[in-house]
This record gives sequence, structure tokens and C-alpha cells, in this order.
Amino acid sequence: MDFAIRGKVEFVALENSYGRFLAEDLIADHDVPSFDRSPYDGFAVRSEDTAQITRMNPGVFEVIGEIGAGSVFHTVVGRNQAVRIMTGAQLPEGADAVVMLELTKEIAGEEGKRFELKRPLKSGENISFQGEDTKKGTILAGKGSVITPGIAALLATFGYHEVPAAKKPVIGVLATGSELLDVNEPLQPGKIRNSNSYMILAQIERAGGEAKYFGKFSDDLEQCINAVREALSQVDLLITTGGVSVGDYDYLPAIYEKLGADVLFNKIAMRPGSVTTVAALDQKLLVGLSGNPSACFVGFELFVRPVIRHHNFHLSPHVRKEKAYLGEDFSKANPFTRFVRAELHFNEGRLTVLPSGFDKSSAVSSLAEANALIILPGGTRGYQAGMMVDVLLLDDQKGSDWPWENIVPSYK
Amino acid sequence: MDFAIRGKVEFVALENSYGRFLAEDLIADHDVPSFDRSPYDGFAVRSEDTAQITRMNPGVFEVIGEIGAGSVFHTVVGRNQAVRIMTGAQLPEGADAVVMLELTKEIAGEEGKRFELKRPLKSGENISFQGEDTKKGTILAGKGSVITPGIAALLATFGYHEVPAAKKPVIGVLATGSELLDVNEPLQPGKIRNSNSYMILAQIERAGGEAKYFGKFSDDLEQCINAVREALSQVDLLITTGGVSVGDYDYLPAIYEKLGADVLFNKIAMRPGSVTTVAALDQKLLVGLSGNPSACFVGFELFVRPVIRHHNFHLSPHVRKEKAYLGEDFSKANPFTRFVRAELHFNEGRLTVLPSGFDKSSAVSSLAEANALIILPGGTRGYQAGMMVDVLLLDDQKGSDWPWENIVPSYK
Repeated sequence: MDFAIRGKVEFVALENSYGRFLAEDLIADHDVPSFDRSPYDGFAVRSEDTAQITRMNPGVFEVIGEIGAGSVFHTVVGRNQAVRIMTGAQLPEGADAVVMLELTKEIAGEEGKRFELKRPLKSGENISFQGEDTKKGTILAGKGSVITPGIAALLATFGYHEVPAAKKPVIGVLATGSELLDVNEPLQPGKIRNSNSYMILAQIERAGGEAKYFGKFSDDLEQCINAVREALSQVDLLITTGGVSVGDYDYLPAIYEKLGADVLFNKIAMRPGSVTTVAALDQKLLVGLSGNPSACFVGFELFVRPVIRHHNFHLSPHVRKEKAYLGEDFSKANPFTRFVRAELHFNEGRLTVLPSGFDKSSAVSSLAEANALIILPGGTRGYQAGMMVDVLLLDDQKGSDWPWENIVPSYK
Repeated sequence: MDFAIRGKVEFVALENSYGRFLAEDLIADHDVPSFDRSPYDGFAVRSEDTAQITRMNPGVFEVIGEIGAGSVFHTVVGRNQAVRIMTGAQLPEGADAVVMLELTKEIAGEEGKRFELKRPLKSGENISFQGEDTKKGTILAGKGSVITPGIAALLATFGYHEVPAAKKPVIGVLATGSELLDVNEPLQPGKIRNSNSYMILAQIERAGGEAKYFGKFSDDLEQCINAVREALSQVDLLITTGGVSVGDYDYLPAIYEKLGADVLFNKIAMRPGSVTTVAALDQKLLVGLSGNPSACFVGFELFVRPVIRHHNFHLSPHVRKEKAYLGEDFSKANPFTRFVRAELHFNEGRLTVLPSGFDKSSAVSSLAEANALIILPGGTRGYQAGMMVDVLLLDDQKGSDWPWENIVPSYK
């Protein structure tokens, strides 16, 4: 995270701002409502004129005009006078209460001119007061917030025709692996289609980045170096997939060296994704993710997403951590902390989490429904259904400040 | 829902398919893996040749070749022979186990030619078998599923260079209300900026529709009728906001009548949003939402989102209902079922839900953080913190089949 940088600000049309990250605090520059208004269709009156009214002793009011929503009434309401007022319209001067239309009865033969009222009103009754929803100066959404429908409404209310948003970081993806076929190629013996790249493109979009796919590496080292150099010049962060295991054909260390990139780490005590490598070059990060689908998936969420969020001004850039009950036994012990793809369920007010079926680092099918990762600390024992565990939520824009403390259960 | 129709299919490039709805079942047309392969870098051997091996009695294997990922080895592995194999590469004929590189020791002076092994292997050890991840014919994601990063990976694996996706329904928005200012206009006495339209545009996007904003109605009935007719010709469903209360200036009933639209309902026993109106014309729906922000918001989620999801082939089109614990008292009783904007929290494995602060139907600020609606059935009593209540989840693509049964708590 020391190498992650904040992005630039760009202005986007309000109607295209859904899902973008706010580049500055959204502050109310006026009260809402900005004037005392009527929440109902009715009549604006002076409450003092209703004080003596009872069912047996109704009051009679003279209608001196009407106020449509958006209009302003320029006469002061006097004794036993009333103004017909529409929902949302500004209260006329002199009046301090609104009586709902349904509670009034027009006087026969004088429709629209006079009405009868059979109950008293308190001062302030049925009025939405200036500032009661939002006071001027209130921060309604902080810098780095994701724009929801509610925030879009607030932006409109406060006149943001153009919204200051974080310019999305451009995240490049370069695939490696001579076993990889393009998606539109027919299957061949020994080969598989390149699925990781398309998974990552979607993960980039979900995280708030702009994905740029550079295709597959060639098998020639010199060409690879040029491909990485060229790709890096077009992006804010470059992901490579595959080629980072200890196999004989691993070009990445040679590429990093040739480019003069500073390798920050190239091994992590976790499963899957132990061979995740991160290097820095000219204030840009190069992230080498494993070629195994689930290792690649996990590596992205743990190491790339926070960089994207940080770029987008998010203040809690890491994957959101919450607690949930393990829904079934996970008996396989592992010396390293394990991140198990899982689906979060809500059962009668309880959060439970179920591993998404088949869980080997090569598995693709278990990823379809996965919306969480269970954190299982390394140790010599397995885990039983009903235990409380930490989970990382993936369909989330709230994030965590730093989720790597106090992981449960701990078997140390 | 009887008037909701299914959409058309269009093909979108896989790299642009994130968040779209699948227009057909995604079925595995081959096994995954499609061949027996090695999950590690190591040597492929015959397990029978290792049966007698112990630490004190190591076996020696002759390396007869190597298999890079994506390559196929054409010689059958024989007695005490081994083939160097890379992660993901296809197992050579004859071999039935893989020994990890770390467990072998090259014989000095014969590097790359012979190695020593000190433990026996079982048949099938360290092999990812054909079909163990996914069997051919498995439905990996049903029609109507939203494309996640995991589903994008599956689509790539099975060769979907172009993805059959539901063509997004075009949802039009027309605002009414002479109190409305455009977002870029300065505030004026008695007027407010049009926030509902922009909120709905974002809600449409979240739900999976394509939003089209037609601006504000004029104050002239004839022009309004033409505006609605023209807008309707360009969309699959048309939303109007405001103008549906009992105020004097309500044009909508007249417009519906003039257009010959069939009004399906124009009042609902709920708060907010009681004046939501839905009409049908030529197999298209016209939805009249209240001008009040929260009524508008709720009305969209309950009445428009299911139509959008149905259009996108989703099988559980309604807003997803789950149970949660009420986080604070909600003392105001109401004769009608109330939908309270709220924020869902995860507390130590428990789902709790907190009303989003100020909750009048005119409130805008409480919408910013709202990601759920609490359903509070109508009755003569309020609700206490700790009670289990039903909540509707808004940041969700899973949906509910029909959420309107067995609402808790019930005070009938």
C-alpha cells in the first residue's frame, strides 16, 4: 500500500455517475427543505384561529388564494383566512399550520371560497420545516464513497450537474502460459482456454477500475519484455497471470530484472496464491498472479482491489471483513492461512458461510457463486460447522481499514 | 407481473459481459479438466515403481523427457522412468502419479537425467483428474444469472467469446412538478431541484435496465400527452414521477385516459408510496411514482425492479427478502404496512438493520446509506429493538420469488 497512489479527479455527468467514487466530500450547501413547506395537500392557516374550535363549534375559514408546488404566495395570511396549498409548496407568510384537505368541509354553495374545520391545530402542525431533513454544512457522503441511487439524489439536490469523481485507474492484464488457448479457439489436447484473464477483467470492473486486456505473452523472452514495457506505459497497474510458479519456463523474474523493477515480495504464507509477486517500477505496480484460477481470484481481491480503491480515494480500501458461522466442516488442516471461496447466506438473522463446493486451487466451477472468502488460519486442526469465522465480502463497496488483525478462530 | 414480458437476446463480447444477465443456461460442453493433469511441478511416474521405496531404500528414476504446460508427451512411461512435468500439463501415458519436485533429489553429476525418491506414491497421487472440477453437461449458471467474475471465467472456459445476454430493457423517466428546478439551475423560493429523476436513473442501472431521461413535463396538458406518447414509443417501460397525488394539478389520470391506457391500480395500502399508479398500454407499462423521494425510491424497488429483472430472464425477480434483527425501536404505529429505508449491518454473525435516520417520505438524506427496506406490517403497535423483522435487500442480484408472504412480526 506504500506504493499505491491516489488518482486524478474527473467530472462526469450526474446521469452517468452511478457506481463511481466521489472525489470530494458532498456537503449540503443549503438547508433541505430550503423553506418551510407543506407535506400534504390542504390549507395553510394560523393555528391561533383554530384554538377554540371543537366538533360542536367548527371554525369557518375564507380561502384567499392557492399555492401550487413551486409557487410563492405574496399576501400575508390574516385572521380566519386560509390558503389552499399543494404538497411541497412553500408555506405562506402568516400561516403556521396546515390542515389536510380531507379534514375540511367546503361550505355548500361557496365551494373553493369557504370551508369548515372541526378540530384545532397546533402551531407547526403538518409543516416540513426548513433544514429538518438536512442542515446546511452537513457532509452527506464522504470523499471515496461509491455513488448509490441515494447519493445521486443528493448530488441532484445540491446542484451537481457534473460530479467530481475519481478517474478510474487503468488496470492492464497480460496472460502467460503456453497451455492457454484463446476463448474462441477449439480445445486441443493438453491445453485449456484462458479463463483467468476474463475473470480478472470482471474483477477489475467490480473493484472500480478500467480493465485493459493485452492478450497473451509470446514464448520469446525479448518479446515478453517489450510487451510488458509497452503495456505498462498504457496503464496504472499491470497484472500478469501465470508464469510465477517455480516451473522451468518462468519468465517473470527475468522480465522484472531486465526492466529494473523492484520486487517487493514474491511469496506469501497463504493458500491459494502463495506465489503472488508484486514489483514496483516508476511508481507503478506490477502484480504477478498465479495461473491457478482460484489463486488468481484470491490474489486479485487481496492485493489489487485495495490499490484500485485507494486510487479511487476510498478510505477503507481492503476487502471488507465480517464474522459468520461456518456452515459445514472444513476438515483439511493446513500450515498456512487459507482463503476458501464461499457463499454467504442469511439464515433467520444469522450469517452463515458455506465453502463453494469443490475447493482446489485449480477449480473454476466453485467460483461462479462465490461472494466471499472464508479466512481459515493455518494450524494443525480442521474447522467444524458452527464455529465463528472471519469472512471477506466481495460484493461490497464498503471495505475494511485493515482486516488482518484478530482473525478467528485462532489455534496458535 | 402479468404484464411484464421477457426481453430479447443479444450477444456481447465476453470482456464487456460483467453484470449482464445470462440469456441461456451456461452448460459445460466438456469436462474440466478436459484431461488428467498435474497440479504441481514435478515428475510423472508409475506408482507401482515406488511401492518398495523407503527412506532407507530410495528408488532411482530415469528422466526420459519433459512436458511443458500445453504440451503433449508422446512416449509411454516405462518401468523406473519419469517425465518432468509442469503445473497444468497433461499426464503422460503410462504414468499414474506425480511426485512434487521438492521431494526428489537429483543424482550428483547426472542433473536432469536421474533422481532419487525416498517415499512411495499411491496411484492417482497428485493428479487432477479429467472432469473432477466440472463434468460435461453440468449447468454452471442458470439463465437469468447475473454474470460475476466467476461466471466470466466459466464462460471463457467453455468458449463463449460472445455471450448471449438479455438485452437491457430501456426504462424511460419523465419528471412532473412545477416546483422542480433542473439540477444546474440556482435555487429559487418555493422550488426544489429535481432529485428523484437522477435517483431513479441510478436505480434503473442497478436493477439491470438502460435508463433514458426525458426531462420535465411542461405545464400544458396537450403537450404532456404528446410527451408521454413520444417517450413511450422509445422505451420498454415509462416511469413518471410526481403528479400522482390528489392535488389539483394532477395530469396523469387525464393523460392515461387520453392515451387509452388501462389503469391496473392507483393506490396501495402501504407507506410510503401509497399513490403509486401502474397502467398498461400496448404491452408496455406506465408507472407513476410519487414525487416524494422515499415514496419514489420504494415504489421503484417494489414495482419496477421486478419488471426489469423479469425482462432479463431472472427467475426470482422480486426484491430479495431476508430476516434481520431490528437495531432500534421504531415506535410509530401505522395502519398500513410501512417500508423503512435502512442500513443492514453484520454484527458478530448477526444481521441487524437500522432505520436510516430521519424517515419522512420527503427525506432525501436518509437515502444515501440505505441498502435495505425494513417491512413493518401495519398495526396499532410500534416495534422494539431486538425483534426479528423482514428486510428487503437492495444491493442484491439474487432476488426473491415472491416475498409477500409470512411477513414478521405479525400483529393481526
